[in-house]
Amino acid sequence: MSKGKRYDLLIVGAGIIGLSSAYHIKKSNPDLSVLIVERHAAPGQGDTAKSVAAIRDTFTSDVNRTLARSSIDFYKHVQSEIGFNLNLELVGYLWLLNRDEVRAYEAIEAQMRAQGMRLKTYERSELTQFTPDLVLDPSSEQGKLMGLKSVERGLQGLDCGTVAPEMIVDYYAGELEKMGVELALGTEVKSIRLGARPSLGIPGEPLLWQDKQIQEVETSQGTLTAETYLIAAGIHASTLLDPIGIDCLIRPRKNEVFQLRGASLDRLLATKGFNEQNTTPFTILPGGRTYFRPVPKERSVWVAFAPGFGQAFKLEEEPSAEESFYTNNIYPILSEYYPCFTNLRPVNMWAGSYDVNSLDGTPVIEKIANCIITTGMSGSGIMKADAVGCVATALFDNEEEATLYGNHKIKTSRLGLANRDVGKEEFVI
Amino acid sequence: MSKGKRYDLLIVGAGIIGLSSAYHIKKSNPDLSVLIVERHAAPGQGDTAKSVAAIRDTFTSDVNRTLARSSIDFYKHVQSEIGFNLNLELVGYLWLLNRDEVRAYEAIEAQMRAQGMRLKTYERSELTQFTPDLVLDPSSEQGKLMGLKSVERGLQGLDCGTVAPEMIVDYYAGELEKMGVELALGTEVKSIRLGARPSLGIPGEPLLWQDKQIQEVETSQGTLTAETYLIAAGIHASTLLDPIGIDCLIRPRKNEVFQLRGASLDRLLATKGFNEQNTTPFTILPGGRTYFRPVPKERSVWVAFAPGFGQAFKLEEEPSAEESFYTNNIYPILSEYYPCFTNLRPVNMWAGSYDVNSLDGTPVIEKIANCIITTGMSGSGIMKADAVGCVATALFDNEEEATLYGNHKIKTSRLGLANRDVGKEEFVI
Repeated sequence: MSKGKRYDLLIVGAGIIGLSSAYHIKKSNPDLSVLIVERHAAPGQGDTAKSVAAIRDTFTSDVNRTLARSSIDFYKHVQSEIGFNLNLELVGYLWLLNRDEVRAYEAIEAQMRAQGMRLKTYERSELTQFTPDLVLDPSSEQGKLMGLKSVERGLQGLDCGTVAPEMIVDYYAGELEKMGVELALGTEVKSIRLGARPSLGIPGEPLLWQDKQIQEVETSQGTLTAETYLIAAGIHASTLLDPIGIDCLIRPRKNEVFQLRGASLDRLLATKGFNEQNTTPFTILPGGRTYFRPVPKERSVWVAFAPGFGQAFKLEEEPSAEESFYTNNIYPILSEYYPCFTNLRPVNMWAGSYDVNSLDGTPVIEKIANCIITTGMSGSGIMKADAVGCVATALFDNEEEATLYGNHKIKTSRLGLANRDVGKEEFVI
Repeated sequence: MSKGKRYDLLIVGAGIIGLSSAYHIKKSNPDLSVLIVERHAAPGQGDTAKSVAAIRDTFTSDVNRTLARSSIDFYKHVQSEIGFNLNLELVGYLWLLNRDEVRAYEAIEAQMRAQGMRLKTYERSELTQFTPDLVLDPSSEQGKLMGLKSVERGLQGLDCGTVAPEMIVDYYAGELEKMGVELALGTEVKSIRLGARPSLGIPGEPLLWQDKQIQEVETSQGTLTAETYLIAAGIHASTLLDPIGIDCLIRPRKNEVFQLRGASLDRLLATKGFNEQNTTPFTILPGGRTYFRPVPKERSVWVAFAPGFGQAFKLEEEPSAEESFYTNNIYPILSEYYPCFTNLRPVNMWAGSYDVNSLDGTPVIEKIANCIITTGMSGSGIMKADAVGCVATALFDNEEEATLYGNHKIKTSRLGLANRDVGKEEFVI
């Protein structure tokens, strides 16, 4: 980066959202000087790297569905048409539903089918046939004590699966380099300073009655200035925006992921019947919170627990996973439904932070003065990243409607703060 | 309070919201044992005491309007029918509108009139006649530099005015004492501890897969337990609820109030034509952010500035007002439109915190497990307090609909987190 240069656009954060935004804005504005600043030593090393990286199009809110569908289609396009491998595998999402969930999801399933989502259901006998490792009726002493319920049905989203975020990051970063976008690594934005618009040269500016905009950002490598700023800092968005009086609606929450490995998992990794890849899909256990992602290439399974009431909202600079989290919260349920996990201990674990928008679980994409904000991914940022970049581009270009990959359209104000209208998501994990 | 006693209901916070909630819940459940804990030495000494305490029914969202109308009617009832003075004075709200605002508010005004709000408009000549102190066209060098615009019209809300929150507090506190509600003063809740429901006696409970509820609260005076908890802690709600994974949607923001006094204000305080009290109404200057409340009894005027972009969200334990805030941000505008403030310096000033729900500016009232939450007053808590207590009562009584004073009904879920539906408020200050 050139010291003292005033860029047209400065992007805070080279995670998947910052990169996607840079890519689409630069494509739309080829002459723009763009600098991305990133505190890590390489792009995509923050929470992008900590994701379980499962992707799905099964949402009931049209906003979520459109963002996810378009992004997944873009990743498909990159992998199969451009030929840049993203490890995109449509192995499916498999919801194992108990009786209450079958009932609760009946209308939602019908709605999703009507909206064109490809879903497949499995009766108990089929589930047993395909995955002999699955216990449909946990009946041990402990399982009963825990109130674990029988699996009544399986519901698979077919246009869902897994991807390698680091490869999406590589793709965007490579394109950005070709397009001449600059990347300042090891550069942490410490604070944002507002200025008056226009400045009257009065001491203490900006005064409250003045119009304001971002004047500069203070970083670990000095002060940087630009015409427009894009805050794609994930959970750090609120750390930067709270002090300038923008409430971006998010709270930070830790997400811990555990990698399990063992010969007892081999059959699970090589299950036939669910998909072309002949593996168990990304699977959500009854109760809807314990889930796992088979990773056949690693001969391992990643497991995690969807957060909720009882799990603190708290900012941790370097969150770390703890084995006791797995042992206490995940293992008891996992080993009851899938005894093949019995006695396995994590061989690896890591933690990231969700930028949770708990009101609607949908991204917050807004422009206030010369500041574009993209945050609130709430755990579904990878699967929506390309579309989020397109919405940010529409805001940058002052267009009311964003055009996403595949020619999907979305009104930008629906994802904003002032006139937010994202609909109600009924299908959450 | 009785050490070791398990109360039916423990309320955190004896501000106006905690007191109103206690009052209505106890009225609905006379046999309930209720304890209110309050960190200050007396009820109503937190942010309730820091309010400008203006009250209005002029809202476009039916939720806001119903909450405010019902509460104002209740305060009227207490003062005129019960005979307990609350210093309630319906002096009106007077919006001084510039040309842009006249246009922007045209539809809103029509909507509010259609909804039965009593509004009165004033042409420029009437404004000059009633308030000779008002400069309709600020034309000084500085006024021009600041871009101050001419006053084109006045719009007065007639069923609006001011009240004395400390007297509402006294009223509720007196009633609560008669009803046998206990009040533990000087008792600060430090944290909330969750327990499993039911407990299985497993170490580390509550585990994530268990149902949870509040088990006890840790206070400066020891541990307290209850069947149900009500968090009416204003801005401290998020400090208490974030650690247990409840996002109550609020951000803290300082509110500074300045008291001005001087012979030059006498004519403003004794203005004829606007109301029976023969004083200037609570007045909002063009631009919609600088406002003042005449306090004839004190022979003073309180002034403040409505917060927005550029003012930090930040929790301050003991926020204090600074004269420079008045000098830089309020005085330049105030003295241009009302030269009678020229050279006056604050004789007193104080600061409180808003519990800002910036998404919709409407209270958050929700029940999660055995925890009722009432927060997000966003600067309009005094005028909605009685109704908020009634909604909290409906949640306590597991009723879907709350009955407010004056027999107004409101569906409780509309103010909650899970299915929030408060409508869009178009008329904000």
